[in-house]
Amino acid sequence: MKRILIVGGVAGGASAAARARRLSETAEIVMFERGEFVSFANCGLPYHIGGDIQDRSALLLQTPQSFKRRFNVDVRVFHDVIDIDKVGKTLLVRNLLTGEERRESYDQLLLSPGAAPIRPPFPGIDSPGVHTLRNIADMDRILAALHRDDPHHVTVVGGGFIGLEMMEALHQHKRDVTLLELSDQVMAPVDREMANMLHARIREEGIDLRLRTGLASIEILDGQPEQTVSTGLRLILSDGTRLDTGLLILAIGVKPETRLAAQAGLELGPRGGIKVDASMCTSDPFIYAVGDAVEETDFVTGESVLIPLAGPANRQGRIAADNMLGRSETYKKTQGTAICKLFDLAVASTGLNEKRLLQLGLPFEKAYVHPGSHAGYYPGAHPVSLKLLFAPDGKIYGAQAIGKDGVDKRIDVLAVAQRAGLTVFDLQDLELTYAPPFGSAKDVINMAGFVASNHLKGDTLLCHTAEVQACHPHQQVLDVRNGPELDQLGRIPGALHIPLDELRGRLNELPREKELLISCQMGLRGHVACRLLSQHGFKVKNLSGGFKTWQMAVMA
Amino acid sequence: MKRILIVGGVAGGASAAARARRLSETAEIVMFERGEFVSFANCGLPYHIGGDIQDRSALLLQTPQSFKRRFNVDVRVFHDVIDIDKVGKTLLVRNLLTGEERRESYDQLLLSPGAAPIRPPFPGIDSPGVHTLRNIADMDRILAALHRDDPHHVTVVGGGFIGLEMMEALHQHKRDVTLLELSDQVMAPVDREMANMLHARIREEGIDLRLRTGLASIEILDGQPEQTVSTGLRLILSDGTRLDTGLLILAIGVKPETRLAAQAGLELGPRGGIKVDASMCTSDPFIYAVGDAVEETDFVTGESVLIPLAGPANRQGRIAADNMLGRSETYKKTQGTAICKLFDLAVASTGLNEKRLLQLGLPFEKAYVHPGSHAGYYPGAHPVSLKLLFAPDGKIYGAQAIGKDGVDKRIDVLAVAQRAGLTVFDLQDLELTYAPPFGSAKDVINMAGFVASNHLKGDTLLCHTAEVQACHPHQQVLDVRNGPELDQLGRIPGALHIPLDELRGRLNELPREKELLISCQMGLRGHVACRLLSQHGFKVKNLSGGFKTWQMAVMA
Repeated sequence: MKRILIVGGVAGGASAAARARRLSETAEIVMFERGEFVSFANCGLPYHIGGDIQDRSALLLQTPQSFKRRFNVDVRVFHDVIDIDKVGKTLLVRNLLTGEERRESYDQLLLSPGAAPIRPPFPGIDSPGVHTLRNIADMDRILAALHRDDPHHVTVVGGGFIGLEMMEALHQHKRDVTLLELSDQVMAPVDREMANMLHARIREEGIDLRLRTGLASIEILDGQPEQTVSTGLRLILSDGTRLDTGLLILAIGVKPETRLAAQAGLELGPRGGIKVDASMCTSDPFIYAVGDAVEETDFVTGESVLIPLAGPANRQGRIAADNMLGRSETYKKTQGTAICKLFDLAVASTGLNEKRLLQLGLPFEKAYVHPGSHAGYYPGAHPVSLKLLFAPDGKIYGAQAIGKDGVDKRIDVLAVAQRAGLTVFDLQDLELTYAPPFGSAKDVINMAGFVASNHLKGDTLLCHTAEVQACHPHQQVLDVRNGPELDQLGRIPGALHIPLDELRGRLNELPREKELLISCQMGLRGHVACRLLSQHGFKVKNLSGGFKTWQMAVMA
Repeated sequence: MKRILIVGGVAGGASAAARARRLSETAEIVMFERGEFVSFANCGLPYHIGGDIQDRSALLLQTPQSFKRRFNVDVRVFHDVIDIDKVGKTLLVRNLLTGEERRESYDQLLLSPGAAPIRPPFPGIDSPGVHTLRNIADMDRILAALHRDDPHHVTVVGGGFIGLEMMEALHQHKRDVTLLELSDQVMAPVDREMANMLHARIREEGIDLRLRTGLASIEILDGQPEQTVSTGLRLILSDGTRLDTGLLILAIGVKPETRLAAQAGLELGPRGGIKVDASMCTSDPFIYAVGDAVEETDFVTGESVLIPLAGPANRQGRIAADNMLGRSETYKKTQGTAICKLFDLAVASTGLNEKRLLQLGLPFEKAYVHPGSHAGYYPGAHPVSLKLLFAPDGKIYGAQAIGKDGVDKRIDVLAVAQRAGLTVFDLQDLELTYAPPFGSAKDVINMAGFVASNHLKGDTLLCHTAEVQACHPHQQVLDVRNGPELDQLGRIPGALHIPLDELRGRLNELPREKELLISCQMGLRGHVACRLLSQHGFKVKNLSGGFKTWQMAVMA
């Protein structure tokens, strides 16, 4: 009888335990979890804090008892695994309630320890009122602090997924919220100009978003005369300013829990996670590892990456169980497909972003479109702002989208297209569901395919904000929108203006010796203008995504 | 200077005209439209009738004037093309306002005449009060009739896209609505058991849905003593019953408008549409044709099919223009991806359905899943009922889905997967956007991939309602749901009942000599039970989609 031990009872570990039992009724399966709960909905924690998920028990998907009943898995909560003896194939396990320590032997071991919130050694980091959010206990502590201290001001550090979700949750509690982000943008998976839409939306809610601002140190306020909150913390920020706050959430990232693995001499990867092969096996053939603690292979570049997301963790758990029980399954690399709700917006991405492509020095092109989520004549359509990154041969590198509706759908379609090896040319031909309430006869994705293909085929070359901003003396920006649009929506400094529908009759007003950078509102009329002008002998480029993208890019 | 004439100014024709101009500033482009309007939103017509789209002018996407201004296209509305002289390369065109006829010469001709609503020669078919819906004028007539006659009862014949949309539109006018459908289901692209969910939803709204019931003849009611509506029609139905109604919408399908093409000796295809090659060229090298009038090639089977949908028409128009202007583009076949809103439900499909696979005699397998549209612990999730059809080697044949949320997204993903040649095994690995408001760590699509793959790999063989209903003496249905679920939701007659979590302890109650057909509510617990029992030596199959699918299939 095979004995399988599993360290960690959330996404990857619980998936593996259930799958292992489905493959073997005879294996002995024991799952150790340091905390009180297994298989809880960690992605739901911010939403319970914010009140969207009212019922705390909805987050507790399984209990040790239910796991035992259904899967005959021996679940030991409050059990901390403190050592692995690879040679003897045993674990040293401490019962956190009794302090008792025991050796447990295994035939195969699965590590799913997850990743821990980063707590940098700021002065004052261990003050009461400083929170991170990883599990049910953390969530309970934050809710208790909100209830007990009733802070009118709270601070979130870090503008990633958890930081933004916590910002929104605390805003829903009607607290004044400051969000600190050390870099120049929130939501690192998307590029800066896309994130600018998020910055505007965050500030529109009255949240005090401070970019390029980190935390330097934390002091406990204790009835000092200058304090502006009743009880709480004084934060010293990276720019030297002080910020008094009643509650601090640290959400600046996570780091893989590799202590056990490293101590046991398992190989770690270049990014500091546990190294595994495609079968999810570590450098020890009897030890597998999955989830946020392991390094994955980037789908596009083949590099080792840390991508702490639930989808990959679940799939890896299943695959590890398969392989522990004699099958031969491989994990198919990670695109990093992800999405985040931000008030009424969604922001999603898959694959590589522009920042990463620049770092890698890969030649790439990009296109922006802003079509409606469904037919404009049917009520309730909202623009989907989509950025597509691709290679000169049409290979899809990645995509990002922001909007109120249909963002998940478009990134899903592009994630599948990327995984299947489709090119931007293929996007033109995708046949997607269309009826006026759901889409358009030419969907957002088809439009992105048209724009990218037109560029690569040389039919309408694209330019971008940087080129417009740097506008060389041999170039001239031409805005082809209608007059009222310019007045209402704004204009690009220095642009000539001729509405598209008057263009054929006013060609003589255009400088023949210059390259024209054409701008409209979204990029569509600019394309028509480019085609028209290029056939009349002008040298032209179309500002991709038009004035709307320009505005996103130049936003403070 | 090349002269391009276009017959028909809606989806395909208008797309072609705009694209042709983008490719050539010098071509003379003339577009003839028999009706008053070009480039109107024909997919929006039912929604204006129903009141969702309040502003009629929102449907008029372009005017002859706007087309002239922007694209320098000479648009002639109220012009009917009555003859093609292939040899002389001319058209005979009649001005419907003046009666004047003129010959117009072309270098290249594009036919985009569309498809006309079928009006079978029922007695009384030409009575006032009998409507079809194809264009703005039809829409105006229906709205005028509703306003003028104020019928309290209206009848729609045909349960396809337009029939269902008109049924809902008239229901929104608070009329009593009867929907007649000659076959045993509405929405032919999906299979019967899926359509049964729609039937239930239609009846829930109080609509008088009559399946297997057609129209035999129509009489005008004119103050006869037995009439039950003030003014109107008496319908004689196929079952001999009479139905008095104030307004009749005929939506029993469309047939390609091929009169012009046939008269000119252009080749027609086996389904009665204009035959074109992949470049959209007809049997005459100077004549192209696109849209609802042409036969397309089915993506899966390669057969000629008639698929009157907006997406293909628009893409074909673009491709025809490319080829008329010297490019070499091909249309990439049609999957028939489509969606329809039905009250708060969406129903969508792509590829082949089971009925068609049976007709074709292709070996196929099927799987049903009903997961939530997003994480169950986040509010607002609704089940997505998805049926996946696939070949024994895993090739995707088609998919159908019904639900209140996220149906478009899942069918889009499967349409891309099918087009890209992915298999059901690949669906397991798709990395889709996940956060609790948008999806699940194991998305609907991943779940469908798991179920299909488990079946093909022999891990958990699926069975379906037909086998459960025919339950042979050597078989036994075993329901593994909990007791209260059976009481609340119903049970399969003759089923044994042991809850999943008690199964390991009660194996001795099961007949070892029989094959067990396992049922739970959705199919997930059934899978766990199958894995458990098969390892204990039982022969088992899992009822795919569980009791929920069974119930859909056996519904009247």
